[in-house]
Amino acid sequence: MTRIVDRHLFGPGPTNAYPEATEALARPLLGHLDPEFIAIMDQTCDRLRTAWGTDNARTLPISATGSAGMEAAFVNTVHPGDVVVVAVNGLFGQRMCDVAARCGAEVIPVEHQWGTPVDPERVVAAHPSPAIVAAVHAETSTGVQSDIKALGEAVHAASDALLLVDAVTSIGGVELRADDWGIDIGYAGTQKCLGVAPGLAPFTINNRAFERRVERPQSWYLDLGLLGGYVGEAGARGGGARTYHHTAPVASVASLHAGLGRILDEGLDNVCARHSAAGQALQDGLERLGLELFAQKGSRLPDLTTVKVPDDVDSAAARRTLLDRYDIEIGAGVGEYAASVWRIGLMGPNTSSDSVALILGALSEVLGR
Amino acid sequence: MTRIVDRHLFGPGPTNAYPEATEALARPLLGHLDPEFIAIMDQTCDRLRTAWGTDNARTLPISATGSAGMEAAFVNTVHPGDVVVVAVNGLFGQRMCDVAARCGAEVIPVEHQWGTPVDPERVVAAHPSPAIVAAVHAETSTGVQSDIKALGEAVHAASDALLLVDAVTSIGGVELRADDWGIDIGYAGTQKCLGVAPGLAPFTINNRAFERRVERPQSWYLDLGLLGGYVGEAGARGGGARTYHHTAPVASVASLHAGLGRILDEGLDNVCARHSAAGQALQDGLERLGLELFAQKGSRLPDLTTVKVPDDVDSAAARRTLLDRYDIEIGAGVGEYAASVWRIGLMGPNTSSDSVALILGALSEVLGR
Repeated sequence: MTRIVDRHLFGPGPTNAYPEATEALARPLLGHLDPEFIAIMDQTCDRLRTAWGTDNARTLPISATGSAGMEAAFVNTVHPGDVVVVAVNGLFGQRMCDVAARCGAEVIPVEHQWGTPVDPERVVAAHPSPAIVAAVHAETSTGVQSDIKALGEAVHAASDALLLVDAVTSIGGVELRADDWGIDIGYAGTQKCLGVAPGLAPFTINNRAFERRVERPQSWYLDLGLLGGYVGEAGARGGGARTYHHTAPVASVASLHAGLGRILDEGLDNVCARHSAAGQALQDGLERLGLELFAQKGSRLPDLTTVKVPDDVDSAAARRTLLDRYDIEIGAGVGEYAASVWRIGLMGPNTSSDSVALILGALSEVLGR
Repeated sequence: MTRIVDRHLFGPGPTNAYPEATEALARPLLGHLDPEFIAIMDQTCDRLRTAWGTDNARTLPISATGSAGMEAAFVNTVHPGDVVVVAVNGLFGQRMCDVAARCGAEVIPVEHQWGTPVDPERVVAAHPSPAIVAAVHAETSTGVQSDIKALGEAVHAASDALLLVDAVTSIGGVELRADDWGIDIGYAGTQKCLGVAPGLAPFTINNRAFERRVERPQSWYLDLGLLGGYVGEAGARGGGARTYHHTAPVASVASLHAGLGRILDEGLDNVCARHSAAGQALQDGLERLGLELFAQKGSRLPDLTTVKVPDDVDSAAARRTLLDRYDIEIGAGVGEYAASVWRIGLMGPNTSSDSVALILGALSEVLGR
């Protein structure tokens, strides 16, 4: 390796990790049934409750990446033939349709133009009595945030459907209030605003959804009935007896524990404010460079900005130059926007003024603007 | 924390990690599509081929713990109604039955007494034409190793069934020759002899099994058809185009890469020899203390030793004393042997003479022998 500095991970994730999270990752390992590890796990679940804005007893880090969190959400709650309405406004909504169908759902996708937020009225009008309504809070493929509070009100007013929400790119950086917004099932990832290496899926499910769960889901690994003993629920928070399910990824859990500790010490509101300020500064700066933002105004995510690639610019070549010359990673677009959109993330520890100045300065040089 | 030394992880796993693996875990993160990370992933898959003793192009680290490797094995190969014969001689054989049944298999368990190895003749006699025969190479619940070479010969002579093998507690420390032994599908874990923190499942599948796979398995996350693009197969080893499936757990993969590098630098045969020597020294020492080993003679795993708890000893209290006084973790037994058997692992970096002396010395003190 001849690089002088580490990569600046300004893509859609993983982001650079908080130093506290990295330090914890390399600590000597504990056994997964060690009393000290169990205390760390309990506290991690508590901290996740704060990050989710929930009191749900069943809040835990699933032992795989965010996409497995999506699978855990559907596999535990979709009974064969259930109607599942999915708000689709990007790749992760599409993925929800695929995952739900594999669980035997009758999937009703409600397509939205990419770059626009979810329209609660259209979603609710799609079916009178779905078992589940699913939506993505922060669409990583388009840089759009949807109003989950409004969606929750609409969904719960219209039927007794469960609301299932993807918060992968919002948790830890964008306001998220699972209980207040009526989220029944939620999953997220660690490698975005939480500033922790990828490998775990923060997950939460309330009693209402848990009572309707599939008794013996098709996945053993993600079976929430079995995972209860793993994190020691027993209905209450932490402290219950542990039963062996699988070997906890102890280093990853310790790292999430430390990353969450860092965030809660600073204050979740302060952390969200810093994501908001960095995103606004970046978006203002991009427009000053004469670039056009992709996500619809008013629904732009602060932590992940999408911008149109100028017509005369080779997207891949520019990204490669950013990587080779400045050690900066930004993301390509997704699907039909692969070559015409860039995705620039400022997440976790990367919300600082110098990160904003760096990406704007480098882009300015590369684009000659 | 008031401990003076780190935990000695002498249980059934996780073991303490190789220093190289720990160091890699804490390195600055790379993006999961970064050319440097792709090179690390390719090399990790190559190193896994050596550890498995296979040429299989489709050899990769699944992004979850070993138990998800089990699920990946069955979910991709069991078609509804398939007959799956499972050799059960411990907890993980039992788990295979559960996982296979959730995939729609007609499961035929072949029960063996715990503490004894799998009997190829009985397994083959269980059904004339199963789709899959499954067995555990190294039963973590009992400390027994089975002769997979003999099982492979018997299975392949009797029918065209696929042979599916759990190598969680053998890979990287006990001889394992997937291709020579006729293993069609194999999964493992990182936290045993490989000496890497838990979080990934080394996985391999040959062409014969891949061609018979389920086209659209019930798990999206573990769908090997989609995971091909993730590790860039295209039939050949590495180097192919990458398609985004899920965000790779980049730190865990880098750590596995480094742990495997450590092992291959030393030489896999040498590493196995050191596991063998440590296990033999431990087992001899336990017998000198007047303790009785649990696993059947001739089938004892070197890396995980099972020993009967003396009648006059409180198993849990003794384990707690080992932990509190010496920072030594050993494992309880499993199932009906929970209180009557201990499981003592010497894996990865813990195969040294001082580890053997430490556990024997501490046990001697605690037991007053």
